[in-house]
Amino acid sequence: MYPMRTYLIVSGKGDEVDVMAADWVTIISHKPLLIGVSISPKRYTHRLVRTHNEFVVSVPSLDMLKDVWIAGTKSGPSKLSEMNITLMPSLRIETPSIKESIANIECKVIDEREYGDHTFFVGKVVGWSHQKGAFENDKPNMKFKFLAHASWTNFVTFENRFYNP
Amino acid sequence: MYPMRTYLIVSGKGDEVDVMAADWVTIISHKPLLIGVSISPKRYTHRLVRTHNEFVVSVPSLDMLKDVWIAGTKSGPSKLSEMNITLMPSLRIETPSIKESIANIECKVIDEREYGDHTFFVGKVVGWSHQKGAFENDKPNMKFKFLAHASWTNFVTFENRFYNP
Repeated sequence: MYPMRTYLIVSGKGDEVDVMAADWVTIISHKPLLIGVSISPKRYTHRLVRTHNEFVVSVPSLDMLKDVWIAGTKSGPSKLSEMNITLMPSLRIETPSIKESIANIECKVIDEREYGDHTFFVGKVVGWSHQKGAFENDKPNMKFKFLAHASWTNFVTFENRFYNP
Repeated sequence: MYPMRTYLIVSGKGDEVDVMAADWVTIISHKPLLIGVSISPKRYTHRLVRTHNEFVVSVPSLDMLKDVWIAGTKSGPSKLSEMNITLMPSLRIETPSIKESIANIECKVIDEREYGDHTFFVGKVVGWSHQKGAFENDKPNMKFKFLAHASWTNFVTFENRFYNP
């Protein structure tokens, strides 16, 4: 399955906000637009998503690799002091977005299911924001260096060219 | 969310085998290893997965882009005659694998849920095979040109280099 895209999941609000890295994120419905994310019950984020029933899928670029690494390997809101990210208000939910990210997708939880050692949270997309020029004519601008996870310490990004069938 | 990795979903057996392209595929549990795939009820594959309760997540390379395009835009098993792929027996299930693919992940359906306009099928990984050298030391070999979907007619692949945090 790997390499898989890596995202940051923002949860919580006010003084208690956490950010974790997640590869296990996908779209599951077009209308309505639903996103599924698999989160281990061991993660601090798990509790915050359950408490507040919302989360942000934030889209980091390669430039944010160090922040992604901290988000993926450390636990709890205290990691935020080690990260170089700026929280900013989301448009439609109370969970904040990340200013430096390429995009932020705001979700309200509509379902959750236990599968194996993870909980699969289903969120309805209720708002979004993105950096200028990141998505033009309905396609991602590959100059923005979208990040993917290859294996534990190895990350990759995409070539800056499109292939057409 | 895009670019997202593109996979081929193989379903059916014997004389009735279908292959569709799918971007909405992710891992949802580590132990046991579970994969979730979102499939529209409009797709022929939907019926075959429901009938046989198994599917293969096949991993195409950039070289298979024309096949991926046919798999994604045409409906039903008749498309296989237009594709340049070779079906081969899977190791643990009756649904076949694709010889040209980088890897084939064999899944048995353990759950399905309706979410919006798609059905989310959850499969337990019961077998897999891959091309020699595609995954060494637990990491993907980026020379294999894993395929991702950027927008409708635009596909991308990864740079052949790793970045470390």
